[in-house]
Amino acid sequence: MPSHAYLTLENYFQRISTLSGIESVLHWDSATVMPEGGSQTRGEQIAELRATLHDLMTTPKIEELIDAAETDKSLTKWQCANVKEMRRKWINATALDADLVIALSKAEVACETAWREARSMGNFKIVLPKLECLVPLIRESATARANKLKVGTYDALLNTYESGYSSNKIAALFSNLETFLPGLLNDVIEHQKSRPFIIPKGPFSEEKQRELGKRFMLDLGFDFKHGRLDVSQHPFCGGVPEDIRITTRFNKNDFTSSLMGILHESGHALYERGLPKNWRLQPVGEPLGMAMHESQSLLIEMQVCRSRDFVEFAAPIIREFLGDGGPAWHSENLYRLHTEVKRSFIRVEADEVSYPLHVILRFQLEKAIIEDSLKISDLPLAWNEKFEKLMGISVPNDQYGCLQDIHWYDGAWGYFPTYTLGALIASQLFQSAIIQIPSIPQDIRNGNFSPLIAWLERNIHQTGKLLESEELLERVTSKPLDPFFFKNHLRSRYLS
Amino acid sequence: MPSHAYLTLENYFQRISTLSGIESVLHWDSATVMPEGGSQTRGEQIAELRATLHDLMTTPKIEELIDAAETDKSLTKWQCANVKEMRRKWINATALDADLVIALSKAEVACETAWREARSMGNFKIVLPKLECLVPLIRESATARANKLKVGTYDALLNTYESGYSSNKIAALFSNLETFLPGLLNDVIEHQKSRPFIIPKGPFSEEKQRELGKRFMLDLGFDFKHGRLDVSQHPFCGGVPEDIRITTRFNKNDFTSSLMGILHESGHALYERGLPKNWRLQPVGEPLGMAMHESQSLLIEMQVCRSRDFVEFAAPIIREFLGDGGPAWHSENLYRLHTEVKRSFIRVEADEVSYPLHVILRFQLEKAIIEDSLKISDLPLAWNEKFEKLMGISVPNDQYGCLQDIHWYDGAWGYFPTYTLGALIASQLFQSAIIQIPSIPQDIRNGNFSPLIAWLERNIHQTGKLLESEELLERVTSKPLDPFFFKNHLRSRYLS
Repeated sequence: MPSHAYLTLENYFQRISTLSGIESVLHWDSATVMPEGGSQTRGEQIAELRATLHDLMTTPKIEELIDAAETDKSLTKWQCANVKEMRRKWINATALDADLVIALSKAEVACETAWREARSMGNFKIVLPKLECLVPLIRESATARANKLKVGTYDALLNTYESGYSSNKIAALFSNLETFLPGLLNDVIEHQKSRPFIIPKGPFSEEKQRELGKRFMLDLGFDFKHGRLDVSQHPFCGGVPEDIRITTRFNKNDFTSSLMGILHESGHALYERGLPKNWRLQPVGEPLGMAMHESQSLLIEMQVCRSRDFVEFAAPIIREFLGDGGPAWHSENLYRLHTEVKRSFIRVEADEVSYPLHVILRFQLEKAIIEDSLKISDLPLAWNEKFEKLMGISVPNDQYGCLQDIHWYDGAWGYFPTYTLGALIASQLFQSAIIQIPSIPQDIRNGNFSPLIAWLERNIHQTGKLLESEELLERVTSKPLDPFFFKNHLRSRYLS
Repeated sequence: MPSHAYLTLENYFQRISTLSGIESVLHWDSATVMPEGGSQTRGEQIAELRATLHDLMTTPKIEELIDAAETDKSLTKWQCANVKEMRRKWINATALDADLVIALSKAEVACETAWREARSMGNFKIVLPKLECLVPLIRESATARANKLKVGTYDALLNTYESGYSSNKIAALFSNLETFLPGLLNDVIEHQKSRPFIIPKGPFSEEKQRELGKRFMLDLGFDFKHGRLDVSQHPFCGGVPEDIRITTRFNKNDFTSSLMGILHESGHALYERGLPKNWRLQPVGEPLGMAMHESQSLLIEMQVCRSRDFVEFAAPIIREFLGDGGPAWHSENLYRLHTEVKRSFIRVEADEVSYPLHVILRFQLEKAIIEDSLKISDLPLAWNEKFEKLMGISVPNDQYGCLQDIHWYDGAWGYFPTYTLGALIASQLFQSAIIQIPSIPQDIRNGNFSPLIAWLERNIHQTGKLLESEELLERVTSKPLDPFFFKNHLRSRYLS
């Protein structure tokens, strides 16, 4: 029997987690249906709910209970992992004193507001003073966390999003990719010159695009009794495992971006939905960090849905919903459309070959700024130099450079690396899945996704946070994270 | 300067009110967009939020602060009224001990579940044992509140929904109506025999009905930057003043029910939207009880939108959205359609002449049960006898009788009288408004609602809870609540 301390903690965290679920309803509502006049009140509601959650997380008795539970010898390994996550949450909640939290929150709002203007004007100087206020606060909060977590300053920021990988490990992985990708990018672009494609001609009605998206969501196992598809300006996956809400935005002349967006978010949704039911509302029952989460969306979008096998299955269906008998709708053409590689300035529009280069750039720059080896005012110059070196094209202005992403300006430092970690994990998992279940490619070609999804559920989703990210990856694939799989995937998809 | 105690209370209630606003978002979501598989989790979220609110309301320091604020001589009349409402909220929150709250909540769920089966089977016996468990708990909670509020037991229940009217006052008003309405009902039905009408033929698309509803909402001043119209099984008005959400349900063959429903809910919405902005999130800034709230919806629906003036304005618009050139769409025919009176068994389908009879029946029976002068097992018999006496038709089975409404079975005892109090208040307000602004009927005929709405805002909406309901009514109309106005309205609309 677990101790009274442990059981009290379970009750307590169940309460916290239930209230957190409410926050995700509020976010979904804000992004999809809320009339614009409701935004200030909504901001106050979210702030009040967070304050309530913060009060709950920082109540003094929690620490005593965690201390007691950590010495409880009767706990199962799931319960032990649960206590470990409780400790991590508690440290993150209590590491910062209230004044710093308020100062950070204000600086983030001010900086994000200035960023919107700076981006639309293409003028970094507009946001520079606000960013120079924000970064020292980010550094201060990172230092406070770092001391408690006993890690480096930048690693404390990484830790907020993904605790599985140190900055040294990431630097090594990224340096490996940095020596490989620019050359590959050249080769692929050269290679694709001999494989032209036709862009299917719209307009495609929102209604038809939605139906098509829902059709593939159903194929993947998305359960509409426990979820929805809606429209928002920035696609996301929100809600709670019993009620998963994904969103997309429809472009009348380009069905691919919305369709691939839906499939990407469906990968996130399947992860949330597959989390261990017995540990629902407990810290150990949550998804691993953002790297593993992104691996699940990229596995579905990039590994599965941009594969030739998937396109063979999907082409007749896409044609049925949107197309005519023309050559643009043939599977070979759609495959070329879905795997086009090109140099681009904008990260969110990048293909999977060049995407990591966007991330490597950001990782190196944000780490340098946090470690004070790069001045904030030098950011545009450093960005443009490094970008040209990595991508071979020169940034025309900061809208296409260091002003393009919201992350740094609303306080999300340390987030960027998770995108590429996710891509690496996705490749490694998918190749392992195929080794373990060789029928998977043919199953996909037949529109039968359940062997793969069941494998993901069993191996990844249902383990929650029982293991650290890399420990889990090694258990499932017999190897620590290795860029070999990603490079192998890119070579075989884009050069053969 | 107000005391520290008072200012602390304002902060504290602002926090409580903000969290309550979240609850209304959750309710809206559950009723309109939530997938069915999300309902259990949603129930847990709402329960957790309520528990959090209850903890906040019952924290011991609140009572000390209210005690102190009540002796603060520096407060303005608004601040004094605010403290009075805080006291009332505090009493209601603390009157019941936790065990009783839990027992009540369980008994309500069990009774409501049994009621759904009982109603569908038309068999009162199925729900009787659950109701016999629930009623003593309702009585116990009423007694606990009554002792603290120093009112009678049934009055303590009324007080939950509307604090402005005692059961004695209501009994007197209803007895007045009871002597008048059955005769009037006969006369009106006789009178309408010579005024036949044609039912406009559907189907009417949901899209067109929605557009029509929105058109009239805009005419009434509903601001879609601060609100929405959606579909739910049971129409309601929810949200917060900055983001008001009303709902309706569309019937393909009957556009009137949905349209009138939209106009009714718009009346509720205008009230919420017009509440005093300076007192937003404070108890004194909330709407008065359910009687005044219902008066605002009935004023818009019954006094304004079923009037001949409105129909003259609306008929060409309705025709444009839904109709053809046929006689069913002429204003005289639409007016007859919108003012049809008939005897019916079902309250929610009743017209405004017979509606109070449904309410009087329920008021007398629920009061008798709470005061233990009627046995619960005798309810169907008592219902059917009284119904036939009031309405002149005999109930074929309990589906059409005492099983038709959810209220008693989910614990809402003391709610019914507010419907008819609302109807009386609406008549009195509307007739006063016309005396004060004689152009109102012609304005309505011209589709200009702003003189009336501005009058309501100034006189009712913007006063929040500064005065008690009847005090406010007397200030605005120079008379306490008097059934004369309602009777006058019915006679002039239905017999001339």
